[in-house]
Amino acid sequence: MKGGAAAIVIGDEILSGKIRDSNGPLLVDVLRSVGAPLKRILTVSDDLEEIGWAVRSCLGRFQPIFTSGGIGPTHDDVTVAGVAAALGRKVVRHPELEALVRKHFGDALPEEGLRLANVPEGAILVRSPRSWYPVISVDEIYLLPGVPELFRMHVEGIAERYRGNPFHLRCVYVSEGEPAIAKILDRIAREHPDIALGSYPRIDDADHRVKLTLEAQVAEPVERALVALLRELPPGSVIRVE
Amino acid sequence: MKGGAAAIVIGDEILSGKIRDSNGPLLVDVLRSVGAPLKRILTVSDDLEEIGWAVRSCLGRFQPIFTSGGIGPTHDDVTVAGVAAALGRKVVRHPELEALVRKHFGDALPEEGLRLANVPEGAILVRSPRSWYPVISVDEIYLLPGVPELFRMHVEGIAERYRGNPFHLRCVYVSEGEPAIAKILDRIAREHPDIALGSYPRIDDADHRVKLTLEAQVAEPVERALVALLRELPPGSVIRVE
Repeated sequence: MKGGAAAIVIGDEILSGKIRDSNGPLLVDVLRSVGAPLKRILTVSDDLEEIGWAVRSCLGRFQPIFTSGGIGPTHDDVTVAGVAAALGRKVVRHPELEALVRKHFGDALPEEGLRLANVPEGAILVRSPRSWYPVISVDEIYLLPGVPELFRMHVEGIAERYRGNPFHLRCVYVSEGEPAIAKILDRIAREHPDIALGSYPRIDDADHRVKLTLEAQVAEPVERALVALLRELPPGSVIRVE
Repeated sequence: MKGGAAAIVIGDEILSGKIRDSNGPLLVDVLRSVGAPLKRILTVSDDLEEIGWAVRSCLGRFQPIFTSGGIGPTHDDVTVAGVAAALGRKVVRHPELEALVRKHFGDALPEEGLRLANVPEGAILVRSPRSWYPVISVDEIYLLPGVPELFRMHVEGIAERYRGNPFHLRCVYVSEGEPAIAKILDRIAREHPDIALGSYPRIDDADHRVKLTLEAQVAEPVERALVALLRELPPGSVIRVE
């Protein structure tokens, strides 16, 4: 995993509120569960240039890249072309994929249906036992279908390839507001650069005003930072530690 | 509105699955309701460079730009600095905002609390009757707080500034699959470039296999494309029109 994973969610229907995206949140959860950090989610329209821009912006920085949506035979399915353009590759027909498409649809398949067999040059197929249509993959970019049931069929198997150390997370619930503890958090963050320290204020009637999170993919530095944090926080301000 | 709106959702907690983002979806709905097209949502980490990159990628192309999160006095609140860097501006103390912060927190305010009064140079304040803390705005970029209750307090009032024509949407539910109608959709999309034509397949047991959407911010071209589409679709394939 180079710099962590990135996701590109493609679809006018999401940006216009016709459909609430569930694939992005599912990918977040799946990557989390396998210990693979996710660094960006770019949600863009069904537009060749936007998709190309999104892919290029992640290339060389983030790996793997997951796309969701824009796979299909209609005019608004431009993900294959967008990824190919970002990589400077041609769109070509994939013989094995063509055979799968022909087998699935049979003789009644119109010419346009064969667009389902187009891939960026050099792409490989990632098969799943749960779906006849594989995921097209090129240079660690995975072109997942946008239909939630199909996305779900493929995403876990692919995420498994990027399994890393489990995340080790500790949470501290504090009764003081952020201004009162900001200086302490500055120091903890500076002295423990190997962990991610988060601070989340609440304004509802929860029993705490700030939730602090300490996290890394190794336990020891998290526990060390937790000890340091608990030593520094104002007496009586810690409501609980999880 | 230049090229439509863009949103930048900032927060490690979202990318790591600790919190499911609700501000992005709310912004989608609010912009939709006021007739303001949303073109991109970029979800990035609490990182100065990532935020700067996200803002720069939208500048000059999309307007307004809404950011969500990373506003506050702690080490992980770097949205003001990220936006300032993207604009090539300094971070400065805003006197009016400083007065508001001092009034709210009183004499007990530690020095770090005054970070809440830092803004990109040239920023203005957008007040809301519902919150003591205003939204910082610079060059049509609105820095909204990530706490959902606070985001909600501000977003509608700001979106109202960008009110446009209501979206006119028609939906056609079809019993044929996408391969069979792709050629027709190609032609309709080509001959009606002033509308957005979407095609959404389903694989569950719904009564239709494809939902087609026709949309624009003027009714007449949508109705014209709808007539053309219904004339071309295979006889008996239209289950209903909404």
